[in-house]
Amino acid sequence: LHYSIAVIPGDGIGPEVMDEGLKVLAALEEAHGGIRFTRDVMDWNCQYYLTHGRMMPENGLHTLKDYDLILLGAVGAPEVPDHVSVWELILPIRRAFQQYVNLRPVKLLKGLESPLRYKGHADLDFVVVRENTEGEYSNMGGRMHQGTPYEMAVQNNVFTRYGTERILKYAYALAEKRPKKSVTAATKSNGINHSMPFWDEIVKEISREHPDIQTNLYHIDALAAYFITRPETFDVVVASNLFGDILTDLGAAIVGGLGLAPSANINPERKYPSMFEPIHGSAPDIAGKGIANPIAQVWSLSMMMDHLDLPDASAVIMNAIEQVLQEGKVLTPDLGGKATTKEVGDELVRHIYLA
Amino acid sequence: LHYSIAVIPGDGIGPEVMDEGLKVLAALEEAHGGIRFTRDVMDWNCQYYLTHGRMMPENGLHTLKDYDLILLGAVGAPEVPDHVSVWELILPIRRAFQQYVNLRPVKLLKGLESPLRYKGHADLDFVVVRENTEGEYSNMGGRMHQGTPYEMAVQNNVFTRYGTERILKYAYALAEKRPKKSVTAATKSNGINHSMPFWDEIVKEISREHPDIQTNLYHIDALAAYFITRPETFDVVVASNLFGDILTDLGAAIVGGLGLAPSANINPERKYPSMFEPIHGSAPDIAGKGIANPIAQVWSLSMMMDHLDLPDASAVIMNAIEQVLQEGKVLTPDLGGKATTKEVGDELVRHIYLA
Ligand SMILES: CC(C)[C@H](C(=O)O)[C@@H](O)C(=O)O
Ligand SMILES: CC(C)[C@H](C(=O)O)[C@@H](O)C(=O)O
Repeated sequence: LHYSIAVIPGDGIGPEVMDEGLKVLAALEEAHGGIRFTRDVMDWNCQYYLTHGRMMPENGLHTLKDYDLILLGAVGAPEVPDHVSVWELILPIRRAFQQYVNLRPVKLLKGLESPLRYKGHADLDFVVVRENTEGEYSNMGGRMHQGTPYEMAVQNNVFTRYGTERILKYAYALAEKRPKKSVTAATKSNGINHSMPFWDEIVKEISREHPDIQTNLYHIDALAAYFITRPETFDVVVASNLFGDILTDLGAAIVGGLGLAPSANINPERKYPSMFEPIHGSAPDIAGKGIANPIAQVWSLSMMMDHLDLPDASAVIMNAIEQVLQEGKVLTPDLGGKATTKEVGDELVRHIYLA
Repeated sequence: LHYSIAVIPGDGIGPEVMDEGLKVLAALEEAHGGIRFTRDVMDWNCQYYLTHGRMMPENGLHTLKDYDLILLGAVGAPEVPDHVSVWELILPIRRAFQQYVNLRPVKLLKGLESPLRYKGHADLDFVVVRENTEGEYSNMGGRMHQGTPYEMAVQNNVFTRYGTERILKYAYALAEKRPKKSVTAATKSNGINHSMPFWDEIVKEISREHPDIQTNLYHIDALAAYFITRPETFDVVVASNLFGDILTDLGAAIVGGLGLAPSANINPERKYPSMFEPIHGSAPDIAGKGIANPIAQVWSLSMMMDHLDLPDASAVIMNAIEQVLQEGKVLTPDLGGKATTKEVGDELVRHIYLA
C-alpha cells in the first residue's frame, strides 16, 4: 500500500502541530509495516502570500490533484485578512476537489473531562456531517452605495438540491452503519424563510428513504442548546456549512477543547484527494511558543487512515492519543499540563512503538 | 403612571405562561401602588390563522401601534408551518415597530446551577444585544428549477450600514454604562466574505468612538465555544440577527435553560411600542400539561419595567424570581421540580406581596 500526501503546514501553530503529525506518521510506517506514504511539503501560507501576492501558485490546485491525500495544518496570519487567506487556500481546495463532506467527530476521549457536569461520558460520542461546498459560504454577493449612509452588503446563501441531497444521503448512509440509527438535522426554517424550508423538504424526502432511521429536525438555536443539555442523545448530526461550523466548535468545547478536534474534508467518490486538518486555526497568540496541542492534527491522521480503510492503523493512533490523555503526564497547557508540543508528539510516538 | 399593553398569548404554552405573567403584573400593581397598566388580549395565533387564513387582522399592526407595550407569549403550532406563523406575526411586529434591539440577558440567577462545571457563578452575568430587523432574516430570495435536479434556493443576507451602525451604537452605549467596559462582537468574516467583512469594518469604526471600551471581534464558531469555556469574561455581546439567535439559546442553556430566558424587543427611540417575550417557543410537546416554566415570561416583565425606567418594580420581580429559585420548593419539571405552571405563578405572586 502506497499513498502520496501533499502536506500544507500553513501558518502560526500549523507547522508546529504538523511536525508532530509527521513524526507520528513516520512512527506508524516504521512500527506497523506495510503502509507507505510519500510526503511533499508545500510552503503555501500567508508568508507565501506576502511574497507572491497569492496564497498558492496559479497551478496549485492542479498540483494537488495528483496526490492521494492532503494534510493541512492551519492557515491565517494577522497581516493577511482572513477572507483572503481562507478564500484563496482552504475553501478553493474544499470546493475544487468536491470535498463536500466535512466529517467532525464529537467524542469524549478516555482520560478527558467534559466542562459539562454531565456524567454519561461513555455516551458522548457522535459525529457532525457538515456540508462543505455551498450554503452560507457562497462567494456570491457584494456592496452598494459605498461611502454613503445608504451603504449595504448582500451575501447570498445558495442551497442546491444537488448539494443538499448529497450531504444528506451521506449522513443517512453513515447513520445506517451506526448503532443508534438516528439523524439530527439542523435547520432555521422559522427565521430563514427561503433556503431553510428548502433544506427541510429535502431532509424529509431523504428521511423517507430510511424508515429505520429516526430523524430529528431542530432549529439551530435549540440544537446548540441541546449540545449542552443532552449531548449524549446525538448520533449523526447533519448541518449546512455555517451551522456545521458553529456546531463543531461547540462540540469541540464540550469534549475538551479545540486543541483536540480533528476534521476530514472528504470526497466520497474518491475522484479527488480528501483533506485532513485540525478544526483549530493558526492561533497567532500562542504561535512560536511551542505549546500548541498537536492532538487535533494527530487525530486527523487517524481519520485519514479510516478514509483509506485502514482501521488498524487508525486504532493504533487513537489508542496512543487516549493513552497519553489517560496517563495525564505529558499534556499541553490547554489541557492543564506543562508539556511542549514536541514532548506530546514524542510521547505519542513512544506509544505507537509500544502498540 | 399609566401604560397600555397589548397582550398576545399565542399558542401552546404561550397562554399558560402568560396567565402567570398577568397574575404577577396584577400583584405588582396592587402591592406597589402608583403604576397602572391596562391590558387588551389579542387572540392572534395559529388557531386564528386556521380560521381566518392570517395570523392577525389586516389592521393588526395599526391596532398595536397605539399601545405603549406589547407582551407576547409564544407562537407556533404543528398544524401551521413556522415560516408562516413567525413571519406573519412576530417578525412583522419586530420590524414595523423598529424594534431593532433584541436584548437578552445571560445571567445565572441565585439558586440556580449552571450545567457547566465552571465555578465563578457570580460572574456569569452578561447581555447579548441582537440585531432584530435585518441580516440573515431578510425575506429576500427564492427558488428556481423546481421539480428538476437543478432546483435551488437562494436567501439573501442583507446588512445595511444604517442597521449595523444603530445596533452597534446601542451596544457600545450600553457597555459604557456597565462596569467591565467590554464589547464582544460576533463575526464570521473568514467564511462569509461579503456581509461579515462589512460588519467588521463598522465594528471597527464604532469602536474607535469608544476608546475606553475594549472590543473583541470573534468568529461565531469560536465565540460559541467561549460561551462554554469562559462565559465569565463577557459583558456586552453584540451579534447579527442569526448569530444573536444562536448565542442566546446557548446562553440560556448555560444559565439554567430556556424556561428562564427572557427577551426584550426594543425600539430605543420609543417612537413605537417595544415587545417583551420569553425566548422559548410554544413547546407543543408539553402544551396543555400545565407544567411549562413561567419564569421566562415573568422575567420579561422585569425587562419591561426596566424599559419604562421603573427599576424598583423591576427589582421586585427579579427578587421574587430569585427567592422562588433559592427556596427551590416550587419549581417546574425543567428545573427538577414537580410544581405546575400555576403553582410557580402563585409562589411568585406571594413573594411580590411579601416584598
Ligand atoms: C421564532 C423565531 C423566528 C425566533 C427567532 O429566531 O428570532 C426565536 O427563535 C427567537 O429567538 O425569538
Ligand atoms: C477558516 C474557516 C473559514 C473555517 C470554516 O469556517 O470553515 C474554519 O472555521 C473551519 O471550521 O474549518
